[in-house]
Amino acid sequence: MLADVARALAPHTGRAHVVGLTGAPGVGKSTTTSVLVTALRAGGRRVGVLAVDPSSPFTGGALLGDRVRMQEHATDSGVFIRSMATRGHLGGLAAAAPQAVRVLDAAGCDVVLIETVGVGQSEVEVAGLADTTVVLLAPGMGDAIQAAKAGILEIGHVYCVNKADRDGADVTARELRTMLAIGRNVEGEGAPRWRPPILKTVASRAEGTNQLLAEIDGHRDYLIEHHELQGRRRLRARAEIEALIVASVRANLSRGDASQQMGRLAAEVVSGDTDPYTAAATFTPHP
Amino acid sequence: MLADVARALAPHTGRAHVVGLTGAPGVGKSTTTSVLVTALRAGGRRVGVLAVDPSSPFTGGALLGDRVRMQEHATDSGVFIRSMATRGHLGGLAAAAPQAVRVLDAAGCDVVLIETVGVGQSEVEVAGLADTTVVLLAPGMGDAIQAAKAGILEIGHVYCVNKADRDGADVTARELRTMLAIGRNVEGEGAPRWRPPILKTVASRAEGTNQLLAEIDGHRDYLIEHHELQGRRRLRARAEIEALIVASVRANLSRGDASQQMGRLAAEVVSGDTDPYTAAATFTPHP
Repeated sequence: MLADVARALAPHTGRAHVVGLTGAPGVGKSTTTSVLVTALRAGGRRVGVLAVDPSSPFTGGALLGDRVRMQEHATDSGVFIRSMATRGHLGGLAAAAPQAVRVLDAAGCDVVLIETVGVGQSEVEVAGLADTTVVLLAPGMGDAIQAAKAGILEIGHVYCVNKADRDGADVTARELRTMLAIGRNVEGEGAPRWRPPILKTVASRAEGTNQLLAEIDGHRDYLIEHHELQGRRRLRARAEIEALIVASVRANLSRGDASQQMGRLAAEVVSGDTDPYTAAATFTPHP
Repeated sequence: MLADVARALAPHTGRAHVVGLTGAPGVGKSTTTSVLVTALRAGGRRVGVLAVDPSSPFTGGALLGDRVRMQEHATDSGVFIRSMATRGHLGGLAAAAPQAVRVLDAAGCDVVLIETVGVGQSEVEVAGLADTTVVLLAPGMGDAIQAAKAGILEIGHVYCVNKADRDGADVTARELRTMLAIGRNVEGEGAPRWRPPILKTVASRAEGTNQLLAEIDGHRDYLIEHHELQGRRRLRARAEIEALIVASVRANLSRGDASQQMGRLAAEVVSGDTDPYTAAATFTPHP
């Protein structure tokens, strides 16, 4: 079914600019997404929003608060909102989110914003889906060093210190600038061609939104001018195909004879009769 | 090589109590690990510490600060410290960390503490490695609702509000209690047999450490009494075998003919000539 839809959509995709918003919980991703939607609509662009929820039985209620912020856009026919839980999708987020992006793309969205709720690997995966990744930070919500630990200093094309009316915004921006400069030196390739800008915003009052949007558009223009867009998208397609192949392998491991064989091997590992490497090597898909 | 070591270690493993420490950046995981080591050593137990770093070229310097906290234990012959970066390991953390745990286990550690630096999927993976998972929170570092979003309310056996000398510790503990109660209701199985305790600690002053250790030990005793330890470990071994099988599939996809075929399929997806599902289904490992 999914495959049929994907096949039908394929010729109609590739037009939308896919923008990921990432950052730790509490930095204001939902609010930033909402004000970006407003700014894009003011410019007459059609917008898709993909809200990815690394789902948990605990979050059902808690997430409603975030979704409320999007309600002002719910009756706008130029805005498409799709929330998705990652749990239970074949291949997880890596397989399910690209399909959702394709649907929004084929529906005629000029821009697709991907926002994740919460933290985690999904953040980095979402960055892998996007043409342009916006990394959000906030003063006092874990400083730039914490951001470095979280690995998000490698994935941003645009950095945004949100809640910039709070104490410490300038410090966070300065630390971030230093960390990014260190990162460039570590790479050892000299200055990269795209230098990620660092902005300050107050999304709750829509301050800085137009500049943020201008930088996002600027990165898209850069990708097109430098012929990097197609290459990025090919890497993304390859990762998606790989995720689907891996998902199919995993699904096979949980079925029938293969599942029973896995159970036996696991018991032998726990008893110390074998080790996981030997077990993996001796596993035969079709015994 | 890895496989040879794993085979040799297999008969000597299974004795250590494996404890994972998880939580957002800045909650005090490193400090808590360090004071737990001190408390375990005071009780005469041998301790292994596995510090997992979702590695980034940016973190080289930043992490040193954390490791400094462990230096007081560096000359103690009853403490084994192993830092590992996940990048570049076959199968990532899911394959590399269990092997490191086995080494510490076989070396005679009574307790192995697994601490991750930063956030991400690795946190949840580490929980999958542990017999007992301690979830750390801190006041003002993202409240209990943020913790729910991050998915960490499902994985804890012991909850710990660290930095409890700060404002808001009681609020965080109360919210956490509420969220955990909601979670139990959502599960719909009535009260689970193990009710995760919620502690308050100030790790930087070693306040509450003994109680934390008592709860960790209590959970181990519970697992043994209720015959749940072996079942958990079998699930873990199975996940590890699966991760190794998947890693081998991924490695094959990046080699030779298979890699060229993947590149062609990805280009066809980007041009709209096919879709990822069809591409995955048509991929043939040995063309």
